[in-house]
Amino acid sequence: MREYVFPVRVGFGDCDPAGIVYYPNFYRWFDDATHAMFRAVGEDMATIKREHGLIAWPLVDTGARFRLPATHGDLIDVHSSIVEWTEKTFRIRHVIKRGEEVLVEGWEVRILGEPIVQDDPAARPKMRAVAIPAAMRAKFDGPDGAGA
Amino acid sequence: MREYVFPVRVGFGDCDPAGIVYYPNFYRWFDDATHAMFRAVGEDMATIKREHGLIAWPLVDTGARFRLPATHGDLIDVHSSIVEWTEKTFRIRHVIKRGEEVLVEGWEVRILGEPIVQDDPAARPKMRAVAIPAAMRAKFDGPDGAGA
Amino acid sequence: MREYVFPVRVGFGDCDPAGIVYYPNFYRWFDDATHAMFRAVGEDMATIKREHGLIAWPLVDTGARFRLPATHGDLIDVHSSIVEWTEKTFRIRHVIKRGEEVLVEGWEVRILGEPIVQDDPAARPKMRAVAIPAAMRAKFDGPDGAGA
Amino acid sequence: MREYVFPVRVGFGDCDPAGIVYYPNFYRWFDDATHAMFRAVGEDMATIKREHGLIAWPLVDTGARFRLPATHGDLIDVHSSIVEWTEKTFRIRHVIKRGEEVLVEGWEVRILGEPIVQDDPAARPKMRAVAIPAAMRAKFDGPDGAGA
Repeated sequence: MREYVFPVRVGFGDCDPAGIVYYPNFYRWFDDATHAMFRAVGEDMATIKREHGLIAWPLVDTGARFRLPATHGDLIDVHSSIVEWTEKTFRIRHVIKRGEEVLVEGWEVRILGEPIVQDDPAARPKMRAVAIPAAMRAKFDGPDGAGA
Repeated sequence: MREYVFPVRVGFGDCDPAGIVYYPNFYRWFDDATHAMFRAVGEDMATIKREHGLIAWPLVDTGARFRLPATHGDLIDVHSSIVEWTEKTFRIRHVIKRGEEVLVEGWEVRILGEPIVQDDPAARPKMRAVAIPAAMRAKFDGPDGAGA
Repeated sequence: MREYVFPVRVGFGDCDPAGIVYYPNFYRWFDDATHAMFRAVGEDMATIKREHGLIAWPLVDTGARFRLPATHGDLIDVHSSIVEWTEKTFRIRHVIKRGEEVLVEGWEVRILGEPIVQDDPAARPKMRAVAIPAAMRAKFDGPDGAGA
Repeated sequence: MREYVFPVRVGFGDCDPAGIVYYPNFYRWFDDATHAMFRAVGEDMATIKREHGLIAWPLVDTGARFRLPATHGDLIDVHSSIVEWTEKTFRIRHVIKRGEEVLVEGWEVRILGEPIVQDDPAARPKMRAVAIPAAMRAKFDGPDGAGA
Protein backbone atom coordinates (compact mmCIF):
# COMPACT_ATOMS: atom_id res chain seq x y z
CA MET A 1 0.00 0.00 0.00
CA ARG A 2 1.86 2.98 -1.31
CA GLU A 3 1.28 6.44 0.12
CA TYR A 4 1.15 9.58 -1.98
CA VAL A 5 1.71 13.03 -0.55
CA PHE A 6 0.03 16.13 -1.91
CA PRO A 7 1.20 19.43 -0.40
CA VAL A 8 -1.13 22.40 0.05
CA ARG A 9 -0.44 25.95 1.13
CA VAL A 10 -3.66 27.08 2.79
CA GLY A 11 -4.91 30.24 1.11
CA PHE A 12 -6.57 33.22 2.74
CA GLY A 13 -9.74 32.56 0.78
CA ASP A 14 -9.78 28.93 1.93
CA CYS A 15 -10.52 30.17 5.44
CA ASP A 16 -13.74 31.41 6.95
CA PRO A 17 -14.64 34.20 9.41
CA ALA A 18 -13.50 31.95 12.27
CA GLY A 19 -10.03 32.22 10.70
CA ILE A 20 -9.76 28.51 9.96
CA VAL A 21 -10.14 26.37 6.84
CA TYR A 22 -13.74 26.26 5.67
CA TYR A 23 -14.33 22.54 5.87
CA PRO A 24 -15.55 21.79 2.31
CA ASN A 25 -12.08 22.83 1.17
CA PHE A 26 -10.61 19.77 2.88
CA TYR A 27 -12.74 17.68 0.52
CA ARG A 28 -11.46 19.74 -2.40
CA TRP A 29 -7.94 18.80 -1.35
CA PHE A 30 -8.94 15.16 -1.00
CA ASP A 31 -10.08 15.34 -4.61
CA ASP A 32 -6.91 17.13 -5.73
CA ALA A 33 -4.85 14.47 -3.95
CA THR A 34 -6.74 11.68 -5.70
CA HIS A 35 -6.05 13.29 -9.05
CA ALA A 36 -2.38 13.70 -8.18
CA MET A 37 -2.14 10.06 -7.10
CA PHE A 38 -3.55 8.78 -10.39
CA ARG A 39 -1.42 11.23 -12.35
CA ALA A 40 1.62 9.83 -10.54
CA VAL A 41 0.96 6.33 -11.87
CA GLY A 42 0.15 7.49 -15.38
CA GLU A 43 -3.60 7.03 -15.11
CA ASP A 44 -4.92 10.55 -15.16
CA MET A 45 -8.53 11.18 -16.06
CA ALA A 46 -7.91 11.94 -19.73
CA THR A 47 -5.90 8.74 -20.15
CA ILE A 48 -8.64 6.66 -18.55
CA LYS A 49 -11.21 8.14 -20.86
CA ARG A 50 -9.07 7.75 -23.96
CA GLU A 51 -7.76 4.26 -23.26
CA HIS A 52 -10.64 2.65 -21.44
CA GLY A 53 -13.60 4.79 -22.51
CA LEU A 54 -14.46 5.20 -18.85
CA ILE A 55 -15.44 8.08 -16.64
CA ALA A 56 -12.87 8.46 -13.93
CA TRP A 57 -13.83 8.12 -10.31
CA PRO A 58 -17.32 9.37 -9.59
CA LEU A 59 -17.76 9.52 -5.83
CA VAL A 60 -20.16 7.26 -4.02
CA ASP A 61 -19.22 7.85 -0.42
CA THR A 62 -17.02 10.26 1.51
CA GLY A 63 -16.42 11.35 5.03
CA ALA A 64 -14.01 13.15 7.28
CA ARG A 65 -13.22 13.60 10.93
CA PHE A 66 -11.77 16.97 11.89
CA ARG A 67 -9.24 16.88 14.71
CA LEU A 68 -7.43 20.18 14.51
CA PRO A 69 -8.01 23.29 12.43
CA ALA A 70 -5.62 24.83 9.92
CA THR A 71 -5.25 28.47 9.06
CA HIS A 72 -4.01 30.55 6.15
CA GLY A 73 -0.36 30.32 5.41
CA ASP A 74 -0.14 26.81 6.88
CA LEU A 75 1.71 24.22 4.87
CA ILE A 76 -0.19 20.97 5.10
CA ASP A 77 0.07 17.61 3.35
CA VAL A 78 -2.58 15.21 2.18
CA HIS A 79 -1.31 11.64 2.63
CA SER A 80 -3.35 9.36 0.40
CA SER A 81 -3.44 5.65 -0.21
CA ILE A 82 -5.90 3.17 -1.67
CA VAL A 83 -6.80 0.95 1.25
CA GLU A 84 -9.46 -1.28 -0.27
CA TRP A 85 -10.46 -2.56 -3.67
CA THR A 86 -13.68 -4.38 -4.48
CA GLU A 87 -14.68 -5.49 -7.95
CA LYS A 88 -16.18 -2.11 -8.78
CA THR A 89 -15.05 0.28 -6.06
CA PHE A 90 -11.91 1.52 -4.40
CA ARG A 91 -11.50 3.29 -1.12
CA ILE A 92 -8.93 6.04 -0.65
CA ARG A 93 -7.79 7.00 2.81
CA HIS A 94 -6.68 10.61 3.17
CA VAL A 95 -4.88 11.95 6.22
CA ILE A 96 -4.09 15.65 6.33
CA LYS A 97 -1.14 16.60 8.46
CA ARG A 98 0.73 19.74 9.42
CA GLY A 99 4.17 18.36 10.09
CA GLU A 100 3.49 15.48 12.45
CA GLU A 101 0.10 16.73 13.66
CA VAL A 102 -2.94 14.98 12.24
CA LEU A 103 -5.56 17.54 11.32
CA VAL A 104 -8.12 15.58 9.32
CA GLU A 105 -8.78 11.92 8.60
CA GLY A 106 -11.10 11.06 5.77
CA TRP A 107 -11.94 8.79 2.92
CA GLU A 108 -13.46 8.64 -0.52
CA VAL A 109 -15.08 5.61 -2.14
CA ARG A 110 -15.04 5.91 -5.90
CA ILE A 111 -15.99 3.91 -8.97
CA LEU A 112 -15.27 3.86 -12.66
CA GLY A 113 -18.27 4.74 -14.77
CA GLU A 114 -19.46 3.63 -18.17
CA PRO A 115 -21.93 5.91 -19.92
CA ILE A 116 -25.35 4.33 -20.55
CA VAL A 117 -26.62 4.96 -24.06
CA GLN A 118 -30.10 6.45 -24.04
CA ASP A 119 -32.66 6.95 -26.79
CA ASP A 120 -33.63 10.43 -25.71
CA PRO A 121 -30.78 12.84 -26.56
CA ALA A 122 -32.13 15.35 -24.05
CA ALA A 123 -32.16 12.81 -21.20
CA ARG A 124 -29.86 13.33 -18.25
CA PRO A 125 -26.62 11.37 -18.77
CA LYS A 126 -26.54 8.06 -16.93
CA MET A 127 -23.72 5.68 -16.14
CA ARG A 128 -23.11 2.36 -14.45
CA ALA A 129 -20.17 1.21 -12.37
CA VAL A 130 -17.89 -1.25 -14.13
CA ALA A 131 -15.25 -3.72 -12.99
CA ILE A 132 -11.97 -1.97 -12.36
CA PRO A 133 -9.38 -2.99 -15.00
CA ALA A 134 -6.70 -5.17 -13.42
CA ALA A 135 -4.00 -3.22 -15.22
CA MET A 136 -5.10 -0.03 -13.55
CA ARG A 137 -5.24 -1.58 -10.13
CA ALA A 138 -1.84 -3.15 -10.61
CA LYS A 139 -0.27 0.26 -10.90
CA PHE A 140 -1.07 0.94 -7.28
CA ASP A 141 0.12 -2.39 -5.95
CA GLY A 142 3.57 -2.02 -4.62
CA PRO A 143 6.31 -4.58 -4.16
CA ASP A 144 4.97 -5.19 -0.68
CA GLY A 145 2.35 -7.40 -2.26
CA ALA A 146 -0.77 -5.53 -1.25
CA GLY A 147 -2.28 -6.07 -4.66
CA ALA A 148 -3.32 -8.25 -7.56
CA MET B 1 -37.87 16.42 14.90
CA ARG B 2 -38.53 19.38 12.72
CA GLU B 3 -37.21 19.52 9.16
CA TYR B 4 -35.82 22.67 7.58
CA VAL B 5 -35.60 23.13 3.82
CA PHE B 6 -32.88 25.17 2.16
CA PRO B 7 -33.28 25.68 -1.59
CA VAL B 8 -30.30 25.93 -3.93
CA ARG B 9 -30.10 26.79 -7.60
CA VAL B 10 -27.03 24.93 -8.86
CA GLY B 11 -24.65 27.39 -10.47
CA PHE B 12 -22.50 26.85 -13.53
CA GLY B 13 -19.37 27.29 -11.45
CA ASP B 14 -20.58 24.72 -8.93
CA CYS B 15 -20.12 22.06 -11.61
CA ASP B 16 -16.98 20.38 -12.87
CA PRO B 17 -15.75 19.27 -16.30
CA ALA B 18 -17.97 16.18 -16.01
CA GLY B 19 -20.88 18.62 -16.08
CA ILE B 20 -22.09 17.71 -12.59
CA VAL B 21 -21.82 19.30 -9.16
CA TYR B 22 -18.26 19.19 -7.86
CA TYR B 23 -18.82 17.22 -4.69
CA PRO B 24 -17.28 19.55 -2.07
CA ASN B 25 -20.05 21.99 -2.97
CA PHE B 26 -22.61 19.62 -1.48
CA TYR B 27 -20.82 20.07 1.82
CA ARG B 28 -20.92 23.82 1.32
CA TRP B 29 -24.68 23.56 0.99
CA PHE B 30 -24.87 21.36 4.08
CA ASP B 31 -23.12 24.16 5.91
CA ASP B 32 -25.39 26.83 4.42
CA ALA B 33 -28.41 24.74 5.42
CA THR B 34 -27.15 24.44 8.98
CA HIS B 35 -26.76 28.21 9.19
CA ALA B 36 -30.26 28.71 7.78
CA MET B 37 -31.72 26.26 10.26
CA PHE B 38 -30.20 28.06 13.23
CA ARG B 39 -31.16 31.43 11.79
CA ALA B 40 -34.73 30.17 11.53
CA VAL B 41 -34.91 29.56 15.29
CA GLY B 42 -33.20 32.83 16.20
CA GLU B 43 -29.87 31.28 17.11
CA ASP B 44 -27.58 32.50 14.37
CA MET B 45 -23.84 32.49 14.89
CA ALA B 46 -23.57 36.12 15.98
CA THR B 47 -26.32 35.67 18.56
CA ILE B 48 -24.64 32.59 20.00
CA LYS B 49 -21.39 34.45 20.35
CA ARG B 50 -22.99 37.52 21.88
CA GLU B 51 -25.38 35.76 24.25
CA HIS B 52 -23.44 32.66 25.19
CA GLY B 53 -19.84 33.67 24.42
CA LEU B 54 -19.55 30.49 22.41
CA ILE B 55 -18.16 29.61 19.02
CA ALA B 56 -20.91 28.21 16.89
CA TRP B 57 -20.72 24.73 15.52
CA PRO B 58 -17.21 23.64 14.73
CA LEU B 59 -17.38 20.39 12.78
CA VAL B 60 -16.09 17.16 14.21
CA ASP B 61 -17.41 14.64 11.74
CA THR B 62 -19.12 14.71 8.36
CA GLY B 63 -19.96 12.39 5.56
CA ALA B 64 -22.10 11.97 2.50
CA ARG B 65 -23.33 9.29 0.16
CA PHE B 66 -23.88 10.40 -3.42
CA ARG B 67 -26.78 8.68 -5.19
CA LEU B 68 -27.49 10.84 -8.22
CA PRO B 69 -25.68 13.81 -9.70
CA ALA B 70 -27.06 17.32 -10.17
CA THR B 71 -26.19 19.75 -12.89
CA HIS B 72 -26.25 23.52 -13.39
CA GLY B 73 -29.64 25.10 -13.47
CA ASP B 74 -31.11 22.37 -11.27
CA LEU B 75 -33.25 23.46 -8.38
CA ILE B 76 -32.45 21.29 -5.41
CA ASP B 77 -33.38 21.36 -1.74
CA VAL B 78 -31.39 20.54 1.34
CA HIS B 79 -33.69 18.94 3.93
CA SER B 80 -32.06 19.24 7.33
CA SER B 81 -32.95 18.08 10.80
CA ILE B 82 -31.12 17.51 14.05
CA VAL B 83 -31.41 13.78 14.62
CA GLU B 84 -29.30 13.32 17.73
CA TRP B 85 -28.15 15.34 20.69
CA THR B 86 -25.52 14.29 23.18
CA GLU B 87 -24.33 16.46 26.05
CA LYS B 88 -21.77 18.21 23.85
CA THR B 89 -22.59 17.29 20.26
CA PHE B 90 -25.47 17.34 17.85
CA ARG B 91 -25.89 15.46 14.62
CA ILE B 92 -27.59 17.04 11.63
CA ARG B 93 -28.98 14.85 8.90
CA HIS B 94 -29.04 16.47 5.45
CA VAL B 95 -30.86 15.00 2.47
CA ILE B 96 -30.54 16.77 -0.84
CA LYS B 97 -33.42 16.24 -3.23
CA ARG B 98 -34.42 17.34 -6.68
CA GLY B 99 -38.17 17.17 -6.46
CA GLU B 100 -38.77 13.70 -5.07
CA GLU B 101 -35.43 12.23 -6.14
CA VAL B 102 -32.85 11.78 -3.43
CA LEU B 103 -29.46 12.92 -4.69
CA VAL B 104 -27.29 13.02 -1.59
CA GLU B 105 -27.60 11.82 1.99
CA GLY B 106 -25.19 13.17 4.52
CA TRP B 107 -24.57 14.33 8.02
CA GLU B 108 -22.60 16.75 10.13
CA VAL B 109 -21.68 16.31 13.80
CA ARG B 110 -20.97 19.65 15.42
CA ILE B 111 -20.15 21.08 18.80
CA LEU B 112 -20.23 24.41 20.57
CA GLY B 113 -16.79 25.72 21.39
CA GLU B 114 -15.42 27.78 24.24
CA PRO B 115 -12.13 29.58 23.62
CA ILE B 116 -9.28 28.41 25.86
CA VAL B 117 -7.31 31.33 27.28
CA GLN B 118 -3.60 30.94 26.61
CA ASP B 119 -0.60 32.77 27.99
CA ASP B 120 1.15 33.11 24.67
CA PRO B 121 -0.69 35.71 22.56
CA ALA B 122 0.88 34.28 19.39
CA ALA B 123 -0.30 30.73 20.15
CA ARG B 124 -2.80 29.11 17.82
CA PRO B 125 -6.33 29.62 19.19
CA LYS B 126 -7.67 26.62 21.08
CA MET B 127 -11.15 25.71 22.23
CA ARG B 128 -12.97 23.00 24.11
CA ALA B 129 -16.44 21.57 23.53
CA VAL B 130 -19.01 22.65 26.09
CA ALA B 131 -22.41 21.36 27.16
CA ILE B 132 -25.09 22.55 24.79
CA PRO B 133 -27.37 25.08 26.52
CA ALA B 134 -30.78 23.56 27.12
CA ALA B 135 -32.47 26.75 25.92
CA MET B 136 -30.78 26.41 22.55
CA ARG B 137 -31.66 22.78 22.19
CA ALA B 138 -35.26 23.46 23.18
CA LYS B 139 -35.70 25.68 20.15
CA PHE B 140 -35.35 22.66 17.91
CA ASP B 141 -37.65 20.41 19.87
CA GLY B 142 -41.02 20.44 18.26
CA PRO B 143 -44.45 19.80 19.74
CA ASP B 144 -44.00 16.15 18.84
CA GLY B 145 -41.93 15.81 21.99
CA ALA B 146 -38.60 14.86 20.47
CA GLY B 147 -36.78 17.16 22.83
CA ALA B 148 -35.90 18.41 26.29
CA MET C 1 -32.23 48.36 -21.33
CA ARG C 2 -33.89 45.94 -19.01
CA GLU C 3 -32.49 45.18 -15.58
CA TYR C 4 -32.46 41.71 -14.05
CA VAL C 5 -32.13 41.13 -10.34
CA PHE C 6 -30.43 38.08 -8.87
CA PRO C 7 -30.69 37.73 -5.08
CA VAL C 8 -27.93 36.17 -3.00
CA ARG C 9 -27.80 35.24 0.67
CA VAL C 10 -24.14 35.57 1.61
CA GLY C 11 -22.92 32.29 3.08
CA PHE C 12 -20.48 31.80 5.93
CA GLY C 13 -18.05 30.08 3.59
CA ASP C 14 -18.25 32.98 1.14
CA CYS C 15 -16.45 35.12 3.72
CA ASP C 16 -12.81 35.23 4.67
CA PRO C 17 -10.93 35.64 7.96
CA ALA C 18 -11.61 39.39 7.81
CA GLY C 19 -15.28 38.46 8.16
CA ILE C 20 -16.26 39.86 4.76
CA VAL C 21 -16.99 38.39 1.36
CA TYR C 22 -13.86 36.96 -0.24
CA TYR C 23 -13.79 39.04 -3.38
CA PRO C 24 -13.64 36.33 -6.07
CA ASN C 25 -17.11 35.31 -4.90
CA PHE C 26 -18.50 38.58 -6.19
CA TYR C 27 -17.37 37.45 -9.65
CA ARG C 28 -19.04 34.10 -9.07
CA TRP C 29 -22.27 35.97 -8.40
CA PHE C 30 -21.75 38.10 -11.53
CA ASP C 31 -21.56 34.84 -13.45
CA ASP C 32 -24.61 33.40 -11.72
CA ALA C 33 -26.52 36.61 -12.50
CA THR C 34 -25.56 36.39 -16.17
CA HIS C 35 -26.85 32.83 -16.32
CA ALA C 36 -30.08 33.86 -14.60
CA MET C 37 -30.56 36.75 -17.02
CA PHE C 38 -30.23 34.51 -20.06
CA ARG C 39 -32.42 31.86 -18.48
CA ALA C 40 -35.06 34.55 -17.94
CA VAL C 41 -35.28 35.25 -21.68
CA GLY C 42 -35.23 31.58 -22.66
CA GLU C 43 -31.64 31.53 -23.87
CA ASP C 44 -29.87 29.40 -21.32
CA MET C 45 -26.57 27.80 -22.16
CA ALA C 46 -27.99 24.43 -23.19
CA THR C 47 -30.48 26.09 -25.53
CA ILE C 48 -27.77 28.16 -27.18
CA LYS C 49 -25.68 25.07 -27.75
CA ARG C 50 -28.58 23.02 -29.09
CA GLU C 51 -30.16 25.67 -31.27
CA HIS C 52 -27.16 27.65 -32.43
CA GLY C 53 -24.31 25.17 -31.96
CA LEU C 54 -22.49 27.88 -30.04
CA ILE C 55 -20.56 28.01 -26.81
CA ALA C 56 -22.26 30.43 -24.48
CA TRP C 57 -20.47 33.45 -23.21
CA PRO C 58 -16.78 32.92 -22.74
CA LEU C 59 -15.36 35.89 -20.86
CA VAL C 60 -12.95 38.27 -22.46
CA ASP C 61 -12.82 41.06 -19.94
CA THR C 62 -14.08 41.68 -16.43
CA GLY C 63 -13.60 44.09 -13.61
CA ALA C 64 -15.08 45.33 -10.39
CA ARG C 65 -14.83 48.22 -7.99
CA PHE C 66 -15.49 47.40 -4.37
CA ARG C 67 -17.20 50.15 -2.40
CA LEU C 68 -18.50 48.47 0.72
CA PRO C 69 -18.04 44.98 2.13
CA ALA C 70 -20.76 42.42 2.76
CA THR C 71 -20.81 39.78 5.46
CA HIS C 72 -22.45 36.42 6.05
CA GLY C 73 -26.16 36.45 6.43
CA ASP C 74 -26.48 39.60 4.31
CA LEU C 75 -29.13 39.60 1.64
CA ILE C 76 -27.73 41.26 -1.43
CA ASP C 77 -28.90 41.66 -5.02
CA VAL C 78 -27.01 41.61 -8.27
CA HIS C 79 -28.62 44.09 -10.67
CA SER C 80 -27.56 43.18 -14.20
CA SER C 81 -28.16 44.65 -17.61
CA ILE C 82 -26.56 44.44 -21.01
CA VAL C 83 -25.25 47.92 -21.64
CA GLU C 84 -23.43 47.49 -24.92
CA TRP C 85 -23.53 45.24 -27.94
CA THR C 86 -20.92 45.08 -30.68
CA GLU C 87 -21.04 42.65 -33.57
CA LYS C 88 -19.32 39.94 -31.56
CA THR C 89 -19.35 41.06 -27.96
CA PHE C 90 -21.74 42.21 -25.29
CA ARG C 91 -21.05 44.03 -22.08
CA ILE C 92 -22.98 43.31 -18.93
CA ARG C 93 -23.04 45.81 -16.12
CA HIS C 94 -23.50 44.33 -12.65
CA VAL C 95 -24.25 46.39 -9.56
CA ILE C 96 -24.44 44.59 -6.24
CA LYS C 97 -26.59 46.27 -3.63
CA ARG C 98 -27.68 45.64 -0.09
CA GLY C 99 -30.98 47.42 0.00
CA GLU C 100 -30.13 50.85 -1.40
CA GLU C 101 -26.41 50.70 -0.63
CA VAL C 102 -24.13 50.03 -3.57
CA LEU C 103 -21.48 47.50 -2.56
CA VAL C 104 -19.84 46.55 -5.85
CA GLU C 105 -19.90 47.83 -9.41
CA GLY C 106 -18.54 45.61 -12.11
CA TRP C 107 -18.78 44.34 -15.64
CA GLU C 108 -18.25 41.37 -17.86
CA VAL C 109 -17.55 41.45 -21.59
CA ARG C 110 -18.50 38.16 -23.20
CA ILE C 111 -18.67 36.55 -26.60
CA LEU C 112 -20.33 33.61 -28.29
CA GLY C 113 -17.86 30.97 -29.38
CA GLU C 114 -17.77 28.57 -32.28
CA PRO C 115 -15.53 25.51 -31.91
CA ILE C 116 -12.66 25.36 -34.40
CA VAL C 117 -12.27 21.92 -35.96
CA GLN C 118 -8.73 20.64 -35.60
CA ASP C 119 -6.94 17.71 -37.19
CA ASP C 120 -5.22 16.59 -34.01
CA PRO C 121 -7.81 15.03 -31.68
CA ALA C 122 -5.52 15.57 -28.71
CA ALA C 123 -5.12 19.29 -29.43
CA ARG C 124 -6.47 21.80 -26.94
CA PRO C 125 -9.97 22.88 -27.99
CA LYS C 126 -10.05 26.21 -29.81
CA MET C 127 -12.87 28.54 -30.68
CA ARG C 128 -13.50 31.81 -32.45
CA ALA C 129 -15.95 34.58 -31.62
CA VAL C 130 -18.95 34.78 -33.93
CA ALA C 131 -21.52 37.42 -34.74
CA ILE C 132 -24.24 37.46 -32.12
CA PRO C 133 -27.52 36.20 -33.60
CA ALA C 134 -30.00 39.06 -33.96
CA ALA C 135 -32.77 36.89 -32.51
CA MET C 136 -30.82 36.41 -29.33
CA ARG C 137 -30.02 40.06 -28.97
CA ALA C 138 -33.63 41.00 -29.62
CA LYS C 139 -34.73 39.15 -26.52
CA PHE C 140 -32.92 41.67 -24.38
CA ASP C 141 -34.20 44.72 -26.20
CA GLY C 142 -37.13 46.09 -24.34
CA PRO C 143 -40.07 48.16 -25.57
CA ASP C 144 -38.01 51.25 -24.87
CA GLY C 145 -36.30 50.64 -28.17
CA ALA C 146 -32.75 50.00 -27.04
CA GLY C 147 -32.45 47.14 -29.48
CA ALA C 148 -32.74 45.69 -32.95
CA MET D 1 10.16 46.50 -9.97
CA ARG D 2 10.65 42.97 -8.80
CA GLU D 3 8.51 40.15 -10.12
CA TYR D 4 7.22 37.34 -7.95
CA VAL D 5 6.10 34.02 -9.37
CA PHE D 6 3.37 31.93 -7.81
CA PRO D 7 2.88 28.48 -9.34
CA VAL D 8 -0.55 26.82 -9.54
CA ARG D 9 -1.54 23.34 -10.58
CA VAL D 10 -5.07 23.74 -11.96
CA GLY D 11 -7.43 21.40 -10.11
CA PHE D 12 -10.35 19.48 -11.52
CA GLY D 13 -12.73 21.41 -9.33
CA ASP D 14 -11.30 24.70 -10.52
CA CYS D 15 -12.80 23.99 -13.93
CA ASP D 16 -16.36 24.28 -15.14
CA PRO D 17 -18.57 22.21 -17.45
CA ALA D 18 -16.83 23.79 -20.44
CA GLY D 19 -13.70 22.03 -19.18
CA ILE D 20 -11.80 25.23 -18.52
CA VAL D 21 -10.94 27.28 -15.44
CA TYR D 22 -14.02 28.90 -13.97
CA TYR D 23 -12.97 32.51 -14.18
CA PRO D 24 -13.43 33.65 -10.56
CA ASN D 25 -10.66 31.19 -9.68
CA PHE D 26 -8.19 33.33 -11.58
CA TYR D 27 -8.98 36.09 -9.10
CA ARG D 28 -8.47 33.63 -6.26
CA TRP D 29 -5.00 32.97 -7.62
CA PHE D 30 -4.34 36.71 -7.95
CA ASP D 31 -5.14 36.96 -4.27
CA ASP D 32 -2.97 33.95 -3.38
CA ALA D 33 -0.13 35.49 -5.39
CA THR D 34 -0.46 38.79 -3.54
CA HIS D 35 -0.24 36.98 -0.22
CA ALA D 36 2.80 35.03 -1.40
CA MET D 37 4.49 38.22 -2.58
CA PHE D 38 4.07 39.92 0.78
CA ARG D 39 5.10 36.78 2.63
CA ALA D 40 8.27 36.73 0.54
CA VAL D 41 9.30 40.16 1.83
CA GLY D 42 8.38 39.39 5.45
CA GLU D 43 5.18 41.44 5.47
CA ASP D 44 2.47 38.84 5.71
CA MET D 45 -0.96 39.81 6.93
CA ALA D 46 -0.41 38.78 10.54
CA THR D 47 2.81 40.79 10.74
CA ILE D 48 1.11 43.89 9.33
CA LYS D 49 -1.64 43.59 11.89
CA ARG D 50 0.73 42.98 14.78
CA GLU D 51 3.35 45.56 13.89
CA HIS D 52 1.30 48.30 12.28
CA GLY D 53 -2.20 47.62 13.66
CA LEU D 54 -3.44 47.72 10.09
CA ILE D 55 -5.77 45.58 8.01
CA ALA D 56 -3.87 44.18 5.10
CA TRP D 57 -4.89 44.97 1.60
CA PRO D 58 -8.61 45.39 1.20
CA LEU D 59 -9.40 45.51 -2.51
CA VAL D 60 -10.73 48.61 -4.15
CA ASP D 61 -10.46 47.74 -7.81
CA THR D 62 -9.69 44.67 -9.87
CA GLY D 63 -9.93 43.47 -13.41
CA ALA D 64 -8.73 40.85 -15.82
CA ARG D 65 -8.54 40.16 -19.51
CA PHE D 66 -8.79 36.55 -20.52
CA ARG D 67 -6.71 35.57 -23.55
CA LEU D 68 -6.49 31.81 -23.45
CA PRO D 69 -8.17 29.21 -21.26
CA ALA D 70 -6.47 26.76 -18.93
CA THR D 71 -7.65 23.29 -18.03
CA HIS D 72 -7.17 20.83 -15.18
CA GLY D 73 -3.74 19.43 -14.78
CA ASP D 74 -2.16 22.54 -16.33
CA LEU D 75 0.80 24.04 -14.56
CA ILE D 76 0.48 27.78 -14.66
CA ASP D 77 2.30 30.67 -13.03
CA VAL D 78 1.07 33.96 -11.68
CA HIS D 79 3.71 36.63 -12.31
CA SER D 80 3.06 39.53 -9.96
CA SER D 81 4.63 42.90 -9.41
CA ILE D 82 3.62 46.16 -7.80
CA VAL D 83 3.51 48.61 -10.68
CA GLU D 84 2.23 51.73 -8.97
CA TRP D 85 2.19 53.28 -5.53
CA THR D 86 0.17 56.29 -4.50
CA GLU D 87 0.05 57.64 -0.97
CA LYS D 88 -2.68 55.24 0.04
CA THR D 89 -2.94 52.65 -2.70
CA PHE D 90 -0.82 50.21 -4.60
CA ARG D 91 -1.50 48.48 -7.86
CA ILE D 92 -0.42 44.92 -8.49
CA ARG D 93 -0.11 43.62 -12.01
CA HIS D 94 -0.71 39.90 -12.40
CA VAL D 95 0.07 37.96 -15.57
CA ILE D 96 -0.84 34.30 -15.68
CA LYS D 97 1.22 32.20 -18.04
CA ARG D 98 1.45 28.58 -19.08
CA GLY D 99 5.08 28.35 -20.08
CA GLU D 100 5.51 31.27 -22.43
CA GLU D 101 1.82 31.63 -23.31
CA VAL D 102 -0.02 34.52 -21.68
CA LEU D 103 -3.41 33.32 -20.47
CA VAL D 104 -4.68 36.17 -18.31
CA GLU D 105 -3.62 39.74 -17.61
CA GLY D 106 -5.10 41.43 -14.60
CA TRP D 107 -4.63 43.81 -11.74
CA GLU D 108 -5.62 44.54 -8.19
CA VAL D 109 -5.62 47.94 -6.49
CA ARG D 110 -5.41 47.58 -2.74
CA ILE D 111 -5.12 49.71 0.35
CA LEU D 112 -4.11 49.39 3.97
CA GLY D 113 -7.02 49.85 6.34
CA GLU D 114 -7.30 51.29 9.81
CA PRO D 115 -10.35 50.26 11.83
CA ILE D 116 -12.67 53.14 12.72
CA VAL D 117 -13.77 53.04 16.35
CA GLN D 118 -17.54 53.20 16.65
CA ASP D 119 -19.79 53.78 19.63
CA ASP D 120 -22.26 51.09 18.72
CA PRO D 121 -20.67 47.67 19.32
CA ALA D 122 -23.20 46.05 16.99
CA ALA D 123 -22.37 48.43 14.13
CA ARG D 124 -20.83 47.03 11.00
CA PRO D 125 -17.02 47.40 11.17
CA LYS D 126 -15.68 50.39 9.27
CA MET D 127 -12.20 51.33 8.20
CA ARG D 128 -10.35 54.09 6.41
CA ALA D 129 -7.41 53.90 4.05
CA VAL D 130 -4.12 55.10 5.56
CA ALA D 131 -0.79 56.21 4.13
CA ILE D 132 1.33 53.21 3.26
CA PRO D 133 4.33 52.95 5.64
CA ALA D 134 7.54 53.79 3.78
CA ALA D 135 9.28 50.82 5.39
CA MET D 136 6.77 48.48 3.89
CA ARG D 137 7.00 49.99 0.47
CA ALA D 138 10.78 49.91 0.61
CA LYS D 139 10.75 46.16 0.84
CA PHE D 140 9.42 45.95 -2.68
CA ASP D 141 11.82 48.46 -4.15
CA GLY D 142 14.64 46.59 -5.76
CA PRO D 143 18.20 47.65 -6.51
CA ASP D 144 17.02 48.80 -9.94
CA GLY D 145 15.80 51.95 -8.27
CA ALA D 146 12.10 51.74 -8.88
CA GLY D 147 11.38 52.73 -5.31
CA ALA D 148 11.58 55.02 -2.34
